[in-house]
Order: sequence, then structure tokens, then C-alpha cells
Amino acid sequence: MEAYLLDYAHQQLKREKVFRDPVHNYVYVNYQVILDLINTTEFQRLRRVHQLGTTSLIFHGAEHSRFGHSLGVYEIARRIVESFEKNFPSTTKGDGLWDSSQDLVVLCAALLHDIGHGAYSHTFEHIFGTNHEQITQEIITSDKTEINQVLRRVSPDFPQEVASVINKTYPNRQVVEMISSQLDADRMDYLLRDAYNTGVKYGTFDLARILEVMRPYKGHICFEMSGMHAVEDYIVSRFQMYQQVYFHPVSRAMEVVLNRLLSRATYIFSDHTQNGPSTPYMLLPFLRGDFDLDDYLQLDDGVLNTYFIHWKRYPDDILSNLATRFIDRKPFKSVRFDQSTKRQLPQLRKIIEQSGFNPKYYTATDNSFDLPYDAYRPGKKQIELLQDDGSLVDLSTVSPIVSAISDKQTGDNRFFFPREVLQPQENVDLFEPEYDEFKRHIRNGKLTNP
Amino acid sequence: MEAYLLDYAHQQLKREKVFRDPVHNYVYVNYQVILDLINTTEFQRLRRVHQLGTTSLIFHGAEHSRFGHSLGVYEIARRIVESFEKNFPSTTKGDGLWDSSQDLVVLCAALLHDIGHGAYSHTFEHIFGTNHEQITQEIITSDKTEINQVLRRVSPDFPQEVASVINKTYPNRQVVEMISSQLDADRMDYLLRDAYNTGVKYGTFDLARILEVMRPYKGHICFEMSGMHAVEDYIVSRFQMYQQVYFHPVSRAMEVVLNRLLSRATYIFSDHTQNGPSTPYMLLPFLRGDFDLDDYLQLDDGVLNTYFIHWKRYPDDILSNLATRFIDRKPFKSVRFDQSTKRQLPQLRKIIEQSGFNPKYYTATDNSFDLPYDAYRPGKKQIELLQDDGSLVDLSTVSPIVSAISDKQTGDNRFFFPREVLQPQENVDLFEPEYDEFKRHIRNGKLTNP
Amino acid sequence: MEAYLLDYAHQQLKREKVFRDPVHNYVYVNYQVILDLINTTEFQRLRRVHQLGTTSLIFHGAEHSRFGHSLGVYEIARRIVESFEKNFPSTTKGDGLWDSSQDLVVLCAALLHDIGHGAYSHTFEHIFGTNHEQITQEIITSDKTEINQVLRRVSPDFPQEVASVINKTYPNRQVVEMISSQLDADRMDYLLRDAYNTGVKYGTFDLARILEVMRPYKGHICFEMSGMHAVEDYIVSRFQMYQQVYFHPVSRAMEVVLNRLLSRATYIFSDHTQNGPSTPYMLLPFLRGDFDLDDYLQLDDGVLNTYFIHWKRYPDDILSNLATRFIDRKPFKSVRFDQSTKRQLPQLRKIIEQSGFNPKYYTATDNSFDLPYDAYRPGKKQIELLQDDGSLVDLSTVSPIVSAISDKQTGDNRFFFPREVLQPQENVDLFEPEYDEFKRHIRNGKLTNP
Amino acid sequence: MEAYLLDYAHQQLKREKVFRDPVHNYVYVNYQVILDLINTTEFQRLRRVHQLGTTSLIFHGAEHSRFGHSLGVYEIARRIVESFEKNFPSTTKGDGLWDSSQDLVVLCAALLHDIGHGAYSHTFEHIFGTNHEQITQEIITSDKTEINQVLRRVSPDFPQEVASVINKTYPNRQVVEMISSQLDADRMDYLLRDAYNTGVKYGTFDLARILEVMRPYKGHICFEMSGMHAVEDYIVSRFQMYQQVYFHPVSRAMEVVLNRLLSRATYIFSDHTQNGPSTPYMLLPFLRGDFDLDDYLQLDDGVLNTYFIHWKRYPDDILSNLATRFIDRKPFKSVRFDQSTKRQLPQLRKIIEQSGFNPKYYTATDNSFDLPYDAYRPGKKQIELLQDDGSLVDLSTVSPIVSAISDKQTGDNRFFFPREVLQPQENVDLFEPEYDEFKRHIRNGKLTNP
Repeated sequence: MEAYLLDYAHQQLKREKVFRDPVHNYVYVNYQVILDLINTTEFQRLRRVHQLGTTSLIFHGAEHSRFGHSLGVYEIARRIVESFEKNFPSTTKGDGLWDSSQDLVVLCAALLHDIGHGAYSHTFEHIFGTNHEQITQEIITSDKTEINQVLRRVSPDFPQEVASVINKTYPNRQVVEMISSQLDADRMDYLLRDAYNTGVKYGTFDLARILEVMRPYKGHICFEMSGMHAVEDYIVSRFQMYQQVYFHPVSRAMEVVLNRLLSRATYIFSDHTQNGPSTPYMLLPFLRGDFDLDDYLQLDDGVLNTYFIHWKRYPDDILSNLATRFIDRKPFKSVRFDQSTKRQLPQLRKIIEQSGFNPKYYTATDNSFDLPYDAYRPGKKQIELLQDDGSLVDLSTVSPIVSAISDKQTGDNRFFFPREVLQPQENVDLFEPEYDEFKRHIRNGKLTNP
Repeated sequence: MEAYLLDYAHQQLKREKVFRDPVHNYVYVNYQVILDLINTTEFQRLRRVHQLGTTSLIFHGAEHSRFGHSLGVYEIARRIVESFEKNFPSTTKGDGLWDSSQDLVVLCAALLHDIGHGAYSHTFEHIFGTNHEQITQEIITSDKTEINQVLRRVSPDFPQEVASVINKTYPNRQVVEMISSQLDADRMDYLLRDAYNTGVKYGTFDLARILEVMRPYKGHICFEMSGMHAVEDYIVSRFQMYQQVYFHPVSRAMEVVLNRLLSRATYIFSDHTQNGPSTPYMLLPFLRGDFDLDDYLQLDDGVLNTYFIHWKRYPDDILSNLATRFIDRKPFKSVRFDQSTKRQLPQLRKIIEQSGFNPKYYTATDNSFDLPYDAYRPGKKQIELLQDDGSLVDLSTVSPIVSAISDKQTGDNRFFFPREVLQPQENVDLFEPEYDEFKRHIRNGKLTNP
Repeated sequence: MEAYLLDYAHQQLKREKVFRDPVHNYVYVNYQVILDLINTTEFQRLRRVHQLGTTSLIFHGAEHSRFGHSLGVYEIARRIVESFEKNFPSTTKGDGLWDSSQDLVVLCAALLHDIGHGAYSHTFEHIFGTNHEQITQEIITSDKTEINQVLRRVSPDFPQEVASVINKTYPNRQVVEMISSQLDADRMDYLLRDAYNTGVKYGTFDLARILEVMRPYKGHICFEMSGMHAVEDYIVSRFQMYQQVYFHPVSRAMEVVLNRLLSRATYIFSDHTQNGPSTPYMLLPFLRGDFDLDDYLQLDDGVLNTYFIHWKRYPDDILSNLATRFIDRKPFKSVRFDQSTKRQLPQLRKIIEQSGFNPKYYTATDNSFDLPYDAYRPGKKQIELLQDDGSLVDLSTVSPIVSAISDKQTGDNRFFFPREVLQPQENVDLFEPEYDEFKRHIRNGKLTNP
Repeated sequence: MEAYLLDYAHQQLKREKVFRDPVHNYVYVNYQVILDLINTTEFQRLRRVHQLGTTSLIFHGAEHSRFGHSLGVYEIARRIVESFEKNFPSTTKGDGLWDSSQDLVVLCAALLHDIGHGAYSHTFEHIFGTNHEQITQEIITSDKTEINQVLRRVSPDFPQEVASVINKTYPNRQVVEMISSQLDADRMDYLLRDAYNTGVKYGTFDLARILEVMRPYKGHICFEMSGMHAVEDYIVSRFQMYQQVYFHPVSRAMEVVLNRLLSRATYIFSDHTQNGPSTPYMLLPFLRGDFDLDDYLQLDDGVLNTYFIHWKRYPDDILSNLATRFIDRKPFKSVRFDQSTKRQLPQLRKIIEQSGFNPKYYTATDNSFDLPYDAYRPGKKQIELLQDDGSLVDLSTVSPIVSAISDKQTGDNRFFFPREVLQPQENVDLFEPEYDEFKRHIRNGKLTNP
């Protein structure tokens, strides 16, 4: 029995399986375990969850799913492991180099690191109190999932090991750092993939070079000094992707619409009992705050959109209006504000209410830093460069560019409101005085003293 | 009022609007009409319809929608028109050059040429008797759509004009040929976009060069002889994309699963009257054969998938099994057959039935040429090259490569069946004799005489 | 001593050396032998010999030298060897798989295959009777070169072994086929590199995929059937590069000018004994037909050009005129002719003579097939694909495109003459009747019956 | 006559001429003037001058010449002009927009801005006191050049106008800024072209986007705020190219060898009168300090290399040794030093002298900032961004990255010396004590206190 399990851990495919990938050209699979994980229902579900949520409504090319990203993270991890095995194999315990018995756990963790992501994760979690990281752990360790069944065939403890890599408690820090650190397989793949699909030019960096200079060292991962500029370029690219793509104000505006739509749906359907076309069957457990893993794994972007399509005709003005805004892509408008202009917001909300919009559902504020954000903040464990004499130095101390970015810690604050308040529709001059008043508060995209 | 309408046709945006596009870098919009069309509910729906249907289940990067493709076709058409206006403007009636009063109708037709496409079009049409080309006409000409309302603001006849470009009856043949011919904006965009997203290398060709050598001539469109190799390369790329991507046997196998799944759904739900989670509300009009345009415009890939997810648990073995195969990506296997081996199919179907699978739902045959296919067939109106002395010559007469491809007219015939018949699952040795018998019929992916 | 030599053959660099390469991203060097070969004076000389001779006068980006190409061929060979070692190592003698003791001889042969190329090779050889293949053999085996000294340190026979790989007499056919066959490291690099530098789009193919499906088999090299389309695409790309780049008529016209210039120089300088600025010191041994290897290795493109620059002012009208045409890029014009129009050539030469140009130096004919050309001619050892049942099949039998190209065996014949005959310069109407007569023979770039 | 001249300025080619370019895809030429300039002997000479001098000895792909770069700068200028004409044409005098009568002077200045560059410019100028900028002016304005003859056909003042654009005295500042400013056609082309040819990834930026947001404004050129990130990315790319490519220490080491070689040649040949193979005929006027424009225009990289090849055998040990080092690529080694370690240099020079090397010819120091360098130094006229309210703001005030780079003003100081001092050759243990002493001064590539 034990033999069988060992066998499975090392079982190679008779013929290497390749997935054509637009970012990495090919993704190579050799382990039977990896192929079996890909073929589980939980992993296939990732095909139906967009990587970038509402961002595809601004960058129309960004329609890629978490499926391709997960394969991509796996592939980068595979290349790192291949390089470490070839160039830096551990020969004596404690030499701080790469222990090849860790290969499979790395590959599985890389592949599964996002397995708990759901439809429109960020907003969904906000409204329904779910947590995709916790669910990732659950999918891997619960004995009800196909994922878990595959992993258990490796060894009874293997699911827990994979899960602990992802939640960063795994003892071998190199394994953890490959998957979650400032310069890890996850971040490298999403930057390249998101840049490729949006068509934005700023997200590209020299992956091949970084893999060249990445190495295990004293139980951690670092980068050879000769690769300093490649690593620097990665940080700059990441900074630019956040500024240009991830924090795009219109994308955030669509998130606000979604947030308000799901709020209203909660208000309407949480104690709904009727059967009918508009009933969000798969959402009900969440609306009622009583869901289990199985409920969660039914959901995907298409399921939510299906309900929204139904709701466009639902006999509640706010729900149908917000559903239409979301499905037909009618983002809210927004303006920036700061500490000094913040005090005008109550007045603006009042004008909006006078114009016929319930501010609870038709206004919002957010800060780009509320979004998940990778800032380079030296001090804690960051990116370390290996000098010729064996000492390590933090990237930001040798790179003025990175140092500059590290200091920038403020996001931008925005106030969101219906576009109608700015651009009155034809035939709707009912609220003209309100509209005029509203506009006096805005100049060059910022709140200003009228 | 007339003045107003004329205005609208020529109304330019105050500030050019650009859409970042991974294939063309940017899509440029200057006409208010075009922006208004993009913002309609019918056009936004295209975001929720994959360009390549089941192909993304084989090439995981190919998750792009018909939205981006439609913008891309518009952009190529825009560049053609820009070039024609600059280099080949008509100066006297009948000179066969470009008449710039046709610009807007070209751009609208390019943008809207696929507006009638629905979820999993090919299979959906097969099962439910819809026709996306007819629906495209309807969306444009029916006064109930937002598309039509925008177009009518240009002039009362304008919707019909745009529609007639798409159905190829428009009198100006240059306009028609830009949108539908062997080398048109539609084909150029889909080849480039599908190649970009699949990551396949064969679909690329030199768009910039082709646009350079494309020109209006004697009322038609032709290509200067100096661009012969660029045009040739386009034909070769197209041929390779069909061989490698569009006719991929696993993609066809997933189409077969979908086809059988929808067949079974029709059997079960066509006179279904219950309300409940599994009820495919939006599909009912189609299952009952009584639908209108509005019903059609509700549907998208996500809606269908939502029903399939529900059906995984439906108490009909065939429906739930086929839904699981589709959602969890368990394609049928297939073998090639030809005239000489075709006669073995009844026997194979019998073995499959003996193994417990209803052949009606678990087998199929198809030929790759049943799929929509662009073959280069000289004789009729094809690609013409302009010689120095003003005469035209068909591409295939000067290009041996194109000539070779033109002659290849046969697709490949495949027989599809459940994978289980080839690779028995663990613990399922019930049907071993049948499985052994089945395998004797297959060699090197082809049916063979056992 | 023996130990020392063995050591050298296997001596790895302490730190892998990488050369940044625009085509392959990086070229990786691990063997000390390879680094030492690169650092020889004979190899460094390749930096001063253009890869494409006069082609850069038409495609201005194509200024790359044989140095980069040689590194590129080495790198592709290195990747092939790495793949063969990993996936297809020979385990028993005669199993037809890869014998890793052959690694170094492959890498050296790949690096050195073009070491005998000289300045403007094709024309130079024609005029002076040199042969770059023979010189390659000599450089490797003569004990006067640094190359030979490096190779001898591996073993006394090693230079001869490397040389025999290049001249195709080496017993291990896999080694030979990697360097010289229809689909070898040399051809793959030059197509990609020439396409990259010219900027032409047609020369690209999927190198990564080809390396994936390439394998040793029964003592030869073949390609897995699954890679058929990648191999096909390579053949198509090669065909297009020949048609578009290598056979470009203006490039051939500049070759003609060069040929005539060197002919005239031979006439003038072969028994020249004066010292002076115009004396082509390094060319003298060749002009006199008495040169050795050392003489040959002094020459490069810049040396020849230096003489041509001097000759622009040499007091021989023909020499100075031809030197000016070459250095200042004034190509001859050309027209195509065929069997039926060939008989007009004497008359044209006569007109040209009447216009004041010596036809011996101012006219020429050539056929594109006189240039080195890789045609795919099935029958002999060509590209073989491996089927599932272990049998091999020639590419052209399964690919209609390749089959079509294989049949095309005719080049184009061109007649070259001074541009002045077509486009009389201002103020030069002396020969107008001749010019008019001349033009009557030409239509649409072809000779025609006047 | 006047009419004729006007005609020439506006004379369009019957058929647009295109040059295939690897960086811009195509370079488009419409003006007869531009084509005539390209066909001059002075412009064709640029084919024989490498863009990056000794850099190709480190980045072997960087073998491109100033010819392609000059075409590239022209092409970018052409696109800018095209965009300005279309989008921002001046309609009233003094409106600060684009005056299309300036088109031709821009295009000519762009094409000719580097026409005075010669072989190994930087070092050549240092040794011989030439100045490529002054020579550029001379080539354009001297009536002995073909360039001047072409320009004069436009109008008698035209050569001077073009020259004044290049020396920045032309009154229309927009014209000057297109060719020479922080973000001009010259810099944009060389960054992209050098990155393309070296294969380095850091030099790329989004040219298309920058051209989109570039605009004439109040008599100057600025960039719309929406393009801030594209402009920022250009500055970051430029910074990285300098750090990685232009300041590469081995490239600087080869410049040092060249400098010492030309110094020694001056010493030997300045009063040389013999005729013979080693006599550097074309260099003599420079060695003697008595040259004219015609002398300068004879020279190119190949001419200099030809002399160096001869000198490898010249009977002066230092000359022949340095020539060999240069031609066979044997760079000096170098170490960094700073103010505190600078005082050790005399001692090191002494050790080197004791080892048998004349320090005058075998050592050197330099600072990377001695090389031409584009730093972003806000304050003076830099890159300005246009805000919504029409005010301008300096890039560095809104971009933390650019601000960081602007502050970095120090280059690195290096001391160069023969490699032999570090790595004694076999059999040469004569100077072992000196070598050991030398090494004690060096640690991690820097001078250190021994």
C-alpha cells in the first residue's frame, strides 16, 4: 500500500503533456498527480471565473480566467524547481540549497494557490463575508473534494502540506517563498498574463533573466546581483500595472455598482421563498448567511450574471436599475477628493438624493489601497540580492527607482455617483438646478471648493 | 430635423476615444454613432459570448469574446477606409475608386457583423433551428433594439443599408467585400485574434503590409502584385489555423457532448412546467420551439452553463452525466474513419450499447468540413492581384502554395464515443470483453480492420 | 597527460557564461572548450563578415555578421543535445538513440560550421576560385590556427572529427544531421536571424515546438507526427524567405556590380607592383592566384570596402565607376527573361555598347537558382515524421503545402544592365535613340517582343 | 526657375517608397527630396559606421549602423508631423499649433541629424579633435557635398535652415524639440533600435502611445496627462539602457584599448612618409592634424579596422599588441574606485609597470558620465504634461519614479588595466609577486584597502 502511494507521487506520464499557453508558450506536465488535479471539477471551475473581474469591462482583452493563470503559476514554479535541481541541489543537510524531495509540494501548491477564488471575489467577499484564502485551505483539506482525493493518494498528510505552503506555515521557507513573496511565481505570472491580455505594454519584464539569477541560498531565495536590473524592472512593471490597470477608476466604479447590486439583492432575497425565474437559487445560501463549501463551488461569474440578467426586469426599481447598469456596463462616474475636500461629500450626497437617487445605493467612496496591493516596503522580508562576497542586500538600497516607489504609500480617494448627475439625459431637465450645483464642486476630475 | 439627422451621421467625438486592444494595440473611435452602438445592450451582450466556443477547453488562452473581435473588425475596416480615402479617393463617378460617403456604413457593418451570434452558436443552431445571420439582420432592422434606434438616428434607411452590407446585397461591392470576402476585415481579425489568444504561432501574418497593398479598383477590391507574398502568407496561415485549431478533434468532441446534452434537455424539458432550480427558464422558449428576438438576446454562455451546473444533479442519468462531462470537461474520444472502414461503425455502436451507453447520446460522427470553413476555391470571386499593366490575376495562378491548398477539399471523418470504452476505470471490469473487442478496431487513431 | 586532455574535454566553466542574443534571448556556454574557441582570432574575425552580403543594401536592418549566426547555431545544437540527453539517452549500443559522448563534437561543429566564410563569399569564390567549405576544413585541421590548437587540447583526433561532421563523413549520422540536413541547427538559426534582422515577417516559425518534436530514432533524426504543422510551417517560411529576401533582384544586381568590379580589379592589379594608397595589399595574393590560409584570414568586408573606397578615385574609368556604384549603392537594373525572349539579349547588349558601356563589365545574366538554395526535394533523405506505429513517412507525402513547394524547381532568369539606359540622366541625351530602342524591349519587368 | 525649386520641395514620388524596417516595420518615403538625400554618397556612408561602436563586442547583436537609425528618426518625425497635421493644424498665426510649412525641414533634419558621425566617434574625436556635430553642420552647408546639392534645390537657404534645426538655433522651437529634446525622435529611435538589436528587454516603451499623446502647444511640444505612464516608462527604459548597455564596463574597456591604440599610432605615424601595407593612408591627415571634410568622409569603421589588422604585425610591440587586443577582442579588466580608494591608483600603476606594461598605454581611468548621457534633470526645459485646465506640469513633479531617477547624478569610476595582471597566463610566472600584490587591492570588483 505504502509502495502504491509512493509510486503515485513519482508517477510520470508516459508522454509529457503540453498545454499551449500564450504567455509561456507551453505548460509542461510530467507528473500524473498534476494532470489529475487539473482534471478535477474544482480546478475546471476556474475556467468560469475571470482573473480580473470587472477589469475586462475596461480592458476588453482581459477576459482570461483563473484557470490559465493557475497553469501559468505552476509552469513558472516548475521552471524554478528545474533550475534549482540542476544548478543548486542540496548535498548536505543544512547547506541551504534546494532539496528535490520538495518538488511535488511546490508544484501542487503553485497550481492550487487560487483554487478558492470565486465569482467577483473582492466584492463577493465584502458582501457575504467569505474568504477565498480560507476556502482554498478547505478545498485542499476537506475530504469531500476531488482535489483532496487526488492529493491524499500521494500521502495522507500531503493535502495538509500543500495547504500549509499556501498559508505560509510550511517549514521549508524556500517552498513558501516560491509561491508567496515579493517576487514569486504567482506575481510573475499574473503580471505577464494580465499585461498580455489587456494589451498594456508596461507589465512585461524579463522572466527568463529573473529565473536565471534566482537561487536558493541559506534556506531562503535570493537573486544574484548581476540580475539587479531585471528584478528592478519587475518592480517597476508591477508598480505601473497597479497604477494603470488594477486601480483603474472605471473598473473600481463597476465594482461599486456590483457592490450596491448585491447589497440590494441581499435586502430583497434574504428571506425570499418563492420559486421563479428571478430566484437566485445558488446564491440563496449566501444571501441567508448559511452556506457550505459545496454551495460555494457551484458559483461562477456566469451564474451571477445569469441572475443579474433576470433582475433587469425585477419589479424593484433599484435592483433592476443596478442590474442593468452592471450588465449593460453603465459605470458610475467618480471624482478624486482629499482631506481638504472630503467635507463636501455630505452636501454632494444630498444633491444626489434630491435628484432622485438613494445615496445608499448610488454613491460610494473608496481608496485604491483598499484593493489588494503589492507595494514594495523594505524592512521586512523583501527582495534580497546576493553580492560577490556572499552577503545579501535589500533591492531598495541599491536601486534608486525601487527606493522611490517604496516610499509612495498613498492611494487615491474617489467619490462615486451616477453619471446622470453630470450629463443630464435628453428630456430630463427636471433636476437641472441640482445638476448645476453638483458640477460647481468638480474641477479637473477632483473635488474643489465651489 | 433632417439637419439633426445629418449631423448625427457626421458627429465626431470631441476627443477621440481609444480602446486598448492586445491585437491592434488601439481601437480608435471618432464617430458618435460608433460609440453609441458599442454602448447598446445588444453589443455589450457580446462580452458574454466566447469567440471560439468549446475551443477554449483545448486552448485555454482562447477565452476571448465576440466583443473584442467585433471591435477588431471595426478597427481593421477603419484602417482600410482611412487608407482608401487618402490614397484612392473617387474623383469622378464610375472611376471605380473609393467613395467616402460610404465610410459610416462600412464601419457600422464591420462592428455589427456578428451581433446575432449567440451562446455556443454552431451547436445551438443545430439543435434549435436558429440562424445567427438571420438574427443579425433582425437585430439591426427590428425597431425594438437599441442598435436599431441608434442607426435610425442616422437616417430611416440606414439600418436596412447596414443589414444589406452584411447579407451581401448592398450595391457598392467594395463595401461588401471589405466585410465579407476571401480577404476581409472579419477574417483578418479573427485569425490574428485567435492566434494571439490560443498562443498558436501559425495564425500570424503581416496585416500592415496587406493594408498597404489593398486597394479599390474598378468597383472591387484587389491587391497590388508587390504584396503577393503577404497575401499568400495570409492564406497559408488561415489554412494552418483551420487544421490546427478550428478542426481540433477534442474541441469537436466537446461540441458533440454539448449537442447530445442539449438534445437530452429538449427531450426532458420541452413540456416541462415545474418551477425550480433546474428549470432552464431562459431556454424554455427554444426547447418549446416558440421564441422571439427578445428571448434570444437574454442568452449567453454563462446562462447555458448555469443550467448545465444545475443539471449535474438532475435525476435523469443521461442528462446529469452529459452535463457533468461538459462542465467538468470530459471529452469523448474519437477515431478517424474513411469509406472503407465506415462499415464497422454499426458494430462499434453495438459494443458501446452493450457497455451500457445509449448510442443515441453517446456516439456521433462528424466531418471537419461540416464546420464553417474558409477554403480557397479559385474560379468564383477570389483574391485578385493587380499587375503593372492594369490586368488582374487570381492569386492561385501565381502562387504554387495557394494553388496546392485550393486543391485540398476533404475534411476528416471522426467517430466519437465515451472514453471509458478505451480506458476502463478502476473497479469497472464488468464490460471487459466488450472493451477488448472495441480496441481491436482501432490502430494509430484510425478505424482499422480488426 | 591523457588525464589532462580528458579534463579539458569535460571542463565546465565555474560560472555559466551567457551571451545576450536577440533571437534566442541567451546563448549559454558551459564548456571551457567552447569559450576558448569563441575567443580565437579566427572566430572573432566572423564579426567582420556580414551574414547576408549585399542583402543589407536592400534590407537595411540585415547588418548582422556570421559571428552571431555561429553562436546561434551552437545554441540551437546545445538545446537539441540537452533535449536528446534528457528524453532519449541511448542505453544499449545500437538502440539508435542519443549517445551523450557525442555532445562536444556536435557543439564544436555547430559553432565552427561557417568559420571558413569570407568577405562577400559567393562572388569572391566565383572570381578567385576559393571555396569556403574547403577553407573551413583547413582552419579546423591546420595546426597553424588558434582554432586547431584549442581542439587539439581535447584530443589529437578531435580537429579531424569536428571537420568530418561538417563535411558530412562523420560516422554518427545523427551528429551530421543536426548540423546539415533539411531541418538542422544551421538552417533554423539563419532563417530566424535573417527574418529578425530584415524585419520580414515570413521567416518566423515555432522553434520551441520543433525542438520538442525532434528526436533521435534508429540512428537518424526524425520528428514526431504531432509536430507536423510546425515542421510544415518551417518549410513554408524557408520558401518565402528565398522568394522574398535571398533571391531579391536588387540584391542580385549589387552582386553583379561586385562581380564586375572584382573582375576589373583582377585585370588591373594582378601584375601590379607599385606601392600606394590604391594598392589592395591584402588582395594581391588572390589577384595573383597565389594565396595561403593566412592570407585568407586577413580579409573581411571592411578590408574589401576600404580598397573600393580608394578605387573610386582610381584613374581607370571602369574601375572607378564600378567602385562608386558599389560603395554608393547604385544597383544595375534588371528584367526577367525566359527561353522565348532570351534571343533578344545580344541585341540589348549591342544597344548598351552603343550607349557607351562595355557589356563585359556592364551586363550580366543570372538565375536565382545559381545562388545557394534549399529546396525541398523528396526522395533522398529529407524530413521524416514518426507515426504512432513506429514507421516513418516523408513530410511531403502528408503535407499538401510542402508537396506543392517541392514541385517548384525553376528560378527566375534576369538580365542586368546600367540603370542609365532606362532613366537617362539630365543633360545626357546623347544616346536617346538607343534608350528608346532599349525600352521597347521591356514590359512589366519582363523582356518582351518589341 | 523659382517655380522649379518650389516644385522640388513639394515633389511627391509617383509611388510611395517603403523601406522594410525591423523596428518600425516600414519607413515611408513620399518626398523626392528625402529619397535623393538617402541616395547621396554621404548618407550611404552611414551604412559603414556602427551605431554603437564597441558595444557590439559585448552585445553581439548590436551590429546595426547609423544608416538604419537615421531612417528610423526620420520615420518617427514623419509620424509626429502626420499626427500634428491631422489633429493640431495651426489656423491662425500665433496659435501655437503646427505649421505644416515646416514639414520638410523637420524631415530633412531628422534624416541628417547624425550625418557627421564617423568611425568610433567618441574615441576618434578625443584623439583627433574632430567634432561630429560641427561636421554635421559642414556636410549640410558646404557646397561640395551631394547632401548640400540636394538641399539647395529646395531653396538657397534651405541647407542653412536644416543645419540650424540640428544646432538648435532654428526659430520654430517645435521643430527643434522634435529632433533634440528630452523626448524626441532621435532618442526614441535609438532606444528602441538599440534594445531590438542588443536583445535587451529594458529599452522598449510604447511608441504608439507616446505619439498619440504628443502635441504642439503654445509654440512648444508637450504631452497629454493621460499619457503620463507611457512617458514615464520611456524615461525608465532610457535609464535602464544607460545602466545596462551604454555604460557597460567591458564596452568602456574596449574603448580604452582603442584610445591607447590610436594614441600609439599617432606617436608612430604622425611623421611617417613611407609607402607600404601598414601605412594608414586615409588616417594620415588626422594623424598630422591637417584634414578637411573630404578626408573625413572617406573614413568608416572598416577602414580603421583594416589598418588595425595590418598593425597586428607592425614592428612596434605596443602598437601590434594593442591592435591585436582590439581586433581579437581582448578587453582590459577594470575595477571600480571612489574618492577614498582613488589614492591607491599610483601604486597600482607602479605594479603594472613592474609587470612590464607601460602604464601610459596599458592603464586608464574613466567615469561613465564622461560618455554622452541623457539624464533627466528637471528645472530647465524638460518633459511637460498638459493638464485638463491647460496648465503644464513637469513630469518629475507627478512621477515619483522619474523624480527618483533625476536625483541620481553620479556615474561610476573605473580603473582599467591588462587582464594578465589578474589572470597570469600559463608559463608566465615571472611577475608572480607583483600579481599577488595587485590582487590584494581588489575585492568584489572594487578597489579596497589591502
